[in-house]
Amino acid sequence: MTSESAQRAIGVAVLGLGTVGSEVARIIREHSTDLEARVGARLELRGVAVRRIDGDRGLPEELLTTDAESLVTRDDVDVVVEVIGGIELPRKLVLAALNAGKSVVTANKALLAEYTGELAEAAERQSVDLYFEAAVAGAIPVIRPLTQSLAGDRVDRVLGIVNGTTNFILSAMDETGADYADTLAEAGRLGYAEADPTADVEGFDAASKAAILASIAFHTRVTAGDVYREGISKITSDDLDAAKSLDCTIKLLSICERIVDANGGERVSARVYPALVPREHPLAGVNGAYNAVVVESANAGRLMFYGQGAGGAPTASAVMGDLVMAARNKVHGGRGPRESKYAQLPIAPMGDIPTRYYVNMQVADRAGVLSAVAAEFANRGVSISTVRQEGAGDGARLVVVTHLANDAALSETVAALAELESVTAVTSVLRLEGTSE
Amino acid sequence: MTSESAQRAIGVAVLGLGTVGSEVARIIREHSTDLEARVGARLELRGVAVRRIDGDRGLPEELLTTDAESLVTRDDVDVVVEVIGGIELPRKLVLAALNAGKSVVTANKALLAEYTGELAEAAERQSVDLYFEAAVAGAIPVIRPLTQSLAGDRVDRVLGIVNGTTNFILSAMDETGADYADTLAEAGRLGYAEADPTADVEGFDAASKAAILASIAFHTRVTAGDVYREGISKITSDDLDAAKSLDCTIKLLSICERIVDANGGERVSARVYPALVPREHPLAGVNGAYNAVVVESANAGRLMFYGQGAGGAPTASAVMGDLVMAARNKVHGGRGPRESKYAQLPIAPMGDIPTRYYVNMQVADRAGVLSAVAAEFANRGVSISTVRQEGAGDGARLVVVTHLANDAALSETVAALAELESVTAVTSVLRLEGTSE
Repeated sequence: MTSESAQRAIGVAVLGLGTVGSEVARIIREHSTDLEARVGARLELRGVAVRRIDGDRGLPEELLTTDAESLVTRDDVDVVVEVIGGIELPRKLVLAALNAGKSVVTANKALLAEYTGELAEAAERQSVDLYFEAAVAGAIPVIRPLTQSLAGDRVDRVLGIVNGTTNFILSAMDETGADYADTLAEAGRLGYAEADPTADVEGFDAASKAAILASIAFHTRVTAGDVYREGISKITSDDLDAAKSLDCTIKLLSICERIVDANGGERVSARVYPALVPREHPLAGVNGAYNAVVVESANAGRLMFYGQGAGGAPTASAVMGDLVMAARNKVHGGRGPRESKYAQLPIAPMGDIPTRYYVNMQVADRAGVLSAVAAEFANRGVSISTVRQEGAGDGARLVVVTHLANDAALSETVAALAELESVTAVTSVLRLEGTSE
Repeated sequence: MTSESAQRAIGVAVLGLGTVGSEVARIIREHSTDLEARVGARLELRGVAVRRIDGDRGLPEELLTTDAESLVTRDDVDVVVEVIGGIELPRKLVLAALNAGKSVVTANKALLAEYTGELAEAAERQSVDLYFEAAVAGAIPVIRPLTQSLAGDRVDRVLGIVNGTTNFILSAMDETGADYADTLAEAGRLGYAEADPTADVEGFDAASKAAILASIAFHTRVTAGDVYREGISKITSDDLDAAKSLDCTIKLLSICERIVDANGGERVSARVYPALVPREHPLAGVNGAYNAVVVESANAGRLMFYGQGAGGAPTASAVMGDLVMAARNKVHGGRGPRESKYAQLPIAPMGDIPTRYYVNMQVADRAGVLSAVAAEFANRGVSISTVRQEGAGDGARLVVVTHLANDAALSETVAALAELESVTAVTSVLRLEGTSE
């Protein structure tokens, strides 16, 4: 197969010319010799779909088109790179490309978190590739290790810092002691937060990535709607101070976990929330806009993948790796791993998940308070790990850290504490992750 | 292709029944349902080659054979897993398997560091897979990220801690202040060092891995003989003290680097030696028997992969990932990435490599010593970064850290220093890596 097909070039269409699309187009054009040697055939950029053709885009104008639909089905296009963003338009274009027998490389986590099933089925029908390494953690190889390197192992847990904006904000709050609003504003000024930061700070972006990671880790279709989600907008500088006093920091985690019930039944949990992480945990040292993903599996033990999770060049690196693999398959025959959903485990609701809570309360400064508080935990079968009493008078506080218990029992306990006459206010509740318990 | 071939099973032969081979055989037999779903066909263990059939090996005796040569060419074997160790016997068996059209998965770094070229050519002739993720850094995905995820990027440097024995020893020396001999003995008692530790402590194992990493990172055939190598057996507790005073630790590094000459010509450097590493570098925190590999590339920036680099279960995880991929290709058609050696860059000799030196000298306690020492550096065009004078009288010392210079110039400078009348002894010379300079 190699010898004759090595003659013909592989045609590439790029949808979108933002920071990632521009980088991808540049690399295809500037590194053609290396890419040809790696693919086994020349990569030729056939066209780039843009919204408007105006101004200098750094590309010959005949490569630009506003007609994305025609571009993705052109006969001389073999692989389509989708880096538009959004959901409905890319969904339509990616489906059209797959149905026309093109392999697709996409960096679009929101699209994948909703429609991987539909897209994977189209790819399957046409025997083409659907690659998406860039959709999670930018340049950091995570999808390929999970789908290929660990294909013979049993993944039990994936714990990731996969959103650079929130990690930048939480790292800065940890370092400077500044509050959330000021730090968010600073992140915006530095280009780490968008004008509307909702998708990042409320955890939607991290939830899309959790859905993708859980799907491939557990061979089960998980969509964004299956992911329990809390953002970081309620985190205060007091929370970070309290974290420090417990020798922890606070990270927005995307957690994918295999939950094994007492009877051996298995379910999948996918969830996103800010959590206390002990300083000695490898994720605690991942700061600024960096990303990292920890994978725990039966035989490999704990692996960590670390690097730049966003930005034009790192994301383009991941897209280009996928593009070279998809093009190689077009030249040599064969396909990359297809969707694996054979396990189809049920999704466990958040209330069933074993977690640990940190609860910070303002309390009356008198005898018997601790006993009343402890009773609320005990009544719901929640075992307390540590209690610290701080301050006096109006500043009297109780800080409780629990052992593992069902999230529902913990959440009910917190509601009951708020009703206690001796508890003035429950000022902060956070989960604790990454401990050996 | 899928539907009919999904009917037949994929036959697996395992060569060697040590810790890794036993784990692989166990996983194939105990996880057949999962593996079948992932491969698209049942994986069936056809036989295990052992040196002697005696005692309980935890396997039905009819699976054991001492005739490895017949096993690897059996008609009902599709994939051969080689975990024997050594070089000449596995070379013969792997070649025979490949020539008989079997795909091969091997964890044998010493074999690959000598004979990847020969083996890859045999795989190419027969259009079968040769996978070796387990040969470098155990369970940590490194080969696949380099050959696939970064296939569209330009790797500039790979910096790895890829030998668990030496990392255990150096971490323990750093922590306890104990000397090399005692720590090596302790590592032996704890099972982290073999009875004859030469391959580990003299850097041969790390050099094999450096050859493999350099080959795939730079699309160039690099063999063990191309790798410059120094071991850790001369590292003293004084060196670790000195490292601490410079806010560094000492790690045995496998370094693969693209060296770009002033005229733009490119060469490859592959080298192994103990080096000072700044505490803030991500590799400085990799302790005990853990491994980590840092990859620096043009677009992805700095990535790090971290995990367990050795042991039966982690290595078996990597072997099983390769086995599932090789088996999938047998079922669905197609092949994984083949050897890429198109760049065929020349190997740069150690003398040409830009490095930084740390030099610790016992000196006469009198005026003019620093000037004489500084002159030796200046005469060879070596720029000094820091000098520290310590102690007095017989204990007077000079500790010099240089900027980047050619290794040959640095090495000549050290030889000249030893000849100086005012220098009683050059007590320690180490390179410094992982700095931004």
